[in-house]
Amino acid sequence: MNDQTHKEKIYTIIFGTTTPAGKYFDITLIACILISMLVLMLDSVQALASEYHYFLRIAEWFFTILFTLEYMLRIYCSPKPWRYVTSFYGFIDLISVLPSYLSLFFSGANYLLMIRLFRVLRVFRVFKLFRYLSEANVLIRSLGMARRKILVFFISVLVLSTVFGSLMYIVEGGQNGFSSIPKSIYWTIVTITTVGYGDITPHTVLGQFIASLAMLTGYSIIAIPTGILTAELSQEIQRERNNKACGICDRYGHDVDAHFCKYCGGKIPD
Amino acid sequence: MNDQTHKEKIYTIIFGTTTPAGKYFDITLIACILISMLVLMLDSVQALASEYHYFLRIAEWFFTILFTLEYMLRIYCSPKPWRYVTSFYGFIDLISVLPSYLSLFFSGANYLLMIRLFRVLRVFRVFKLFRYLSEANVLIRSLGMARRKILVFFISVLVLSTVFGSLMYIVEGGQNGFSSIPKSIYWTIVTITTVGYGDITPHTVLGQFIASLAMLTGYSIIAIPTGILTAELSQEIQRERNNKACGICDRYGHDVDAHFCKYCGGKIPD
Amino acid sequence: MNDQTHKEKIYTIIFGTTTPAGKYFDITLIACILISMLVLMLDSVQALASEYHYFLRIAEWFFTILFTLEYMLRIYCSPKPWRYVTSFYGFIDLISVLPSYLSLFFSGANYLLMIRLFRVLRVFRVFKLFRYLSEANVLIRSLGMARRKILVFFISVLVLSTVFGSLMYIVEGGQNGFSSIPKSIYWTIVTITTVGYGDITPHTVLGQFIASLAMLTGYSIIAIPTGILTAELSQEIQRERNNKACGICDRYGHDVDAHFCKYCGGKIPD
Amino acid sequence: MNDQTHKEKIYTIIFGTTTPAGKYFDITLIACILISMLVLMLDSVQALASEYHYFLRIAEWFFTILFTLEYMLRIYCSPKPWRYVTSFYGFIDLISVLPSYLSLFFSGANYLLMIRLFRVLRVFRVFKLFRYLSEANVLIRSLGMARRKILVFFISVLVLSTVFGSLMYIVEGGQNGFSSIPKSIYWTIVTITTVGYGDITPHTVLGQFIASLAMLTGYSIIAIPTGILTAELSQEIQRERNNKACGICDRYGHDVDAHFCKYCGGKIPD
Repeated sequence: MNDQTHKEKIYTIIFGTTTPAGKYFDITLIACILISMLVLMLDSVQALASEYHYFLRIAEWFFTILFTLEYMLRIYCSPKPWRYVTSFYGFIDLISVLPSYLSLFFSGANYLLMIRLFRVLRVFRVFKLFRYLSEANVLIRSLGMARRKILVFFISVLVLSTVFGSLMYIVEGGQNGFSSIPKSIYWTIVTITTVGYGDITPHTVLGQFIASLAMLTGYSIIAIPTGILTAELSQEIQRERNNKACGICDRYGHDVDAHFCKYCGGKIPD
Repeated sequence: MNDQTHKEKIYTIIFGTTTPAGKYFDITLIACILISMLVLMLDSVQALASEYHYFLRIAEWFFTILFTLEYMLRIYCSPKPWRYVTSFYGFIDLISVLPSYLSLFFSGANYLLMIRLFRVLRVFRVFKLFRYLSEANVLIRSLGMARRKILVFFISVLVLSTVFGSLMYIVEGGQNGFSSIPKSIYWTIVTITTVGYGDITPHTVLGQFIASLAMLTGYSIIAIPTGILTAELSQEIQRERNNKACGICDRYGHDVDAHFCKYCGGKIPD
Repeated sequence: MNDQTHKEKIYTIIFGTTTPAGKYFDITLIACILISMLVLMLDSVQALASEYHYFLRIAEWFFTILFTLEYMLRIYCSPKPWRYVTSFYGFIDLISVLPSYLSLFFSGANYLLMIRLFRVLRVFRVFKLFRYLSEANVLIRSLGMARRKILVFFISVLVLSTVFGSLMYIVEGGQNGFSSIPKSIYWTIVTITTVGYGDITPHTVLGQFIASLAMLTGYSIIAIPTGILTAELSQEIQRERNNKACGICDRYGHDVDAHFCKYCGGKIPD
Repeated sequence: MNDQTHKEKIYTIIFGTTTPAGKYFDITLIACILISMLVLMLDSVQALASEYHYFLRIAEWFFTILFTLEYMLRIYCSPKPWRYVTSFYGFIDLISVLPSYLSLFFSGANYLLMIRLFRVLRVFRVFKLFRYLSEANVLIRSLGMARRKILVFFISVLVLSTVFGSLMYIVEGGQNGFSSIPKSIYWTIVTITTVGYGDITPHTVLGQFIASLAMLTGYSIIAIPTGILTAELSQEIQRERNNKACGICDRYGHDVDAHFCKYCGGKIPD
């Protein structure tokens, strides 16, 4: 019984966000995650790594062991450990420590630790940034409404890329950098999205003509996802604003300036 | 009579999509097309081609002969062969095998086989992805509504490109890469569409000033097709949603959540 | 009197577009303009110019003399010559022949002949492409409505470019390509408009950080002109569609599904 | 008493914009600021600086001393000097002269004088460009309404950049230019924003595949801020237009061309 209470106490601190202790724990955790990512970034910079390698490695292992202990504690104090382990955060928490152990066998694997970034998503829960989540929801819902149109658009882009890529491979050929069809498709995506690295560029007149067509195509179809999303977002935002409910039938969706419910004729409170 | 029934059976398998045999045939066909395109892509990669050339060529001819036989079978079993041959798919099916035979005379022609991509469009019919087609239709109809505005826009872009291109040719000249008016126009399109390869860049101060103007122009007019399309799409999406007709006066255009016709007060079926 | 009729006849042919002769004249004229521009473009291509220089020069002078004669004829047959000379087309017609004569004194001036492009605008009048003009009008009117907002936007872009440009000049300095403030401003415009030639790129860590900020700024403010124009275009398109007039007071601007005039209550014809 | 009137006179000239003297003062001031910035820009151009260095330096110090005197005069004649010093313009006026004095100790500091740009913002007050300010206000209010959505969007972009950057660092590694995680993140921002300098480009097949994904992601999410802003701007513009109130019930929100209030039937003043 005493053990149970002890576990519950730890649970409240680790998983809860309402008690001061729980809040401090979460803030410390997020700070640790961000510092551990900074350590990793600095470790990847050649100039720094050669000088402070020893120190940075110790810091990395310090955080890895810390997060491993935290993960074990979470399993220990969870009333339903399995449910935590198979949850989204449980999964992220696990793969946030694994790469360090993997790096013992495969060098370079430790950079996968950048996945710790996703642990920072807790920040929304900790600071109660629900308003931001609701804004994100409007975006996500609009994207959801538009998903089929956007998929059709993406398939069109891929088909276009394949067609333009194959054409350019035939027209320009290997001596101008278009050394294979996959590489030509890569070039087409670079061109259609208007990124334009310039690592591969057309050199023949016909190639430059086709490239111009590809660019103008990319320039115009950039309008399509914007158009789709704007149309959906407008309605979604409108809907979010008109969320005054009817006083009688309790339904939503009335015009901004409506005074009476359009379903039952009841008065809408101001 | 027996022959007729035999032909009809083949017809049902090859052209139909409702029977299990017809469905399996189509799925196998699409898989073959995709594999044949993959073979072609791999064949274009120098490193792979030099090692597996023999194998890849055999695979290519295997698919070409397979598709040739399929094409003949389609003509054979069609009740109206000529109608199939002159149809969109009939045309695509033919030019999807021709390049292989052409490559016997002209090396490199076989890469035109990438046109097989268009055969994959059958996928929509096979998997009954009509919902996606209807989404594509909204896009296409919006583009149709906006076609004149978009044409006006494109002509403006071409006129602008010619003007900026000629100017840059005069200002920068051949020693800075602007070696001819067509090439300068190519550069202007690269710049206005914000692709910016960097293979040709202005070096004089005046050239950089004109280039800046061209960029800012491109940056602003990118808004025009988006604006046009968004405006059309909004209305098209709205219209698509409001396509429930009134049960009494049979008119359209009601709000999404309306239960009663706004013209005659009749009930709108759910 | 006879001379007057003679002049009138020529006037009908040259300025008119309704008679067959007038139409044929205009079509021939547009063809000549396009060919003369093609000649000029080909002349700018080094490889062609060295071989066909003599022929291309003759062609250029042939068209220049032709257009000079046409210009004189237009002045001659005009009932109000001065009004033609000072009109938009009169001005374009004049500066479309001048560069050739200028090139006798200043080499290279003949490429200014590309200004002939603007003469092609007559094509709208000749082929009665008024529907396209009306579409262009919707665009132009929307741009007009949005002009102040777009000007504010442009001034902001220029201020931002100056600020980022000066910052980068201080941070990166001449050895990394940012050799002067005007050049740094050019780089900033290249970056903010997402063109990104790559002829000048930041090399220091701080420079890359500021460059990232500039990119993200450019990426976001690209939304502003689009948003402005879309908002204006939506209303303009809506207005254009609702152009059924009231049968009694003859006014426009009713809702798409309105049956009665909102100004006077009169019936709107279907 | 006489001194007070003297101070007031100066105050009217320096701070006021309604009297002719005040207007001339402000116009001269803006001209001086613009010229001083031009001097600074020319000084940064190597070729000019080496030749006219002496002259440009004198000009720079002339303006610095002029602006210092002006700043002192503003403090002197202000009825509440401290309020001016701590105001936005007071702060800008101070830091617009400081860099010159700093450059006596730190070479290069004088380029910070570009901050004088912000002094030019007075132009709005001087020329009474309030209409432009009101247009800017619509933009700023829309951005304000959309700020949370845009923040969510920016955080997503940064998260995406970190994820793609770390991935590319692991896949491509230092020998292909991705020499550290911060540099890879810089590359990802260059790619996602479709700037695409091409100073760092992927060379491995897997790297090019991930880069293509990053580009397509950037290409699509460019739609999100546009969608958000367009939706907000549409409503903001609509609202701005419908700001005539009914003469009887004093309510807003009527159609642009409505003559009668839609709530109470009262006349709307023109």
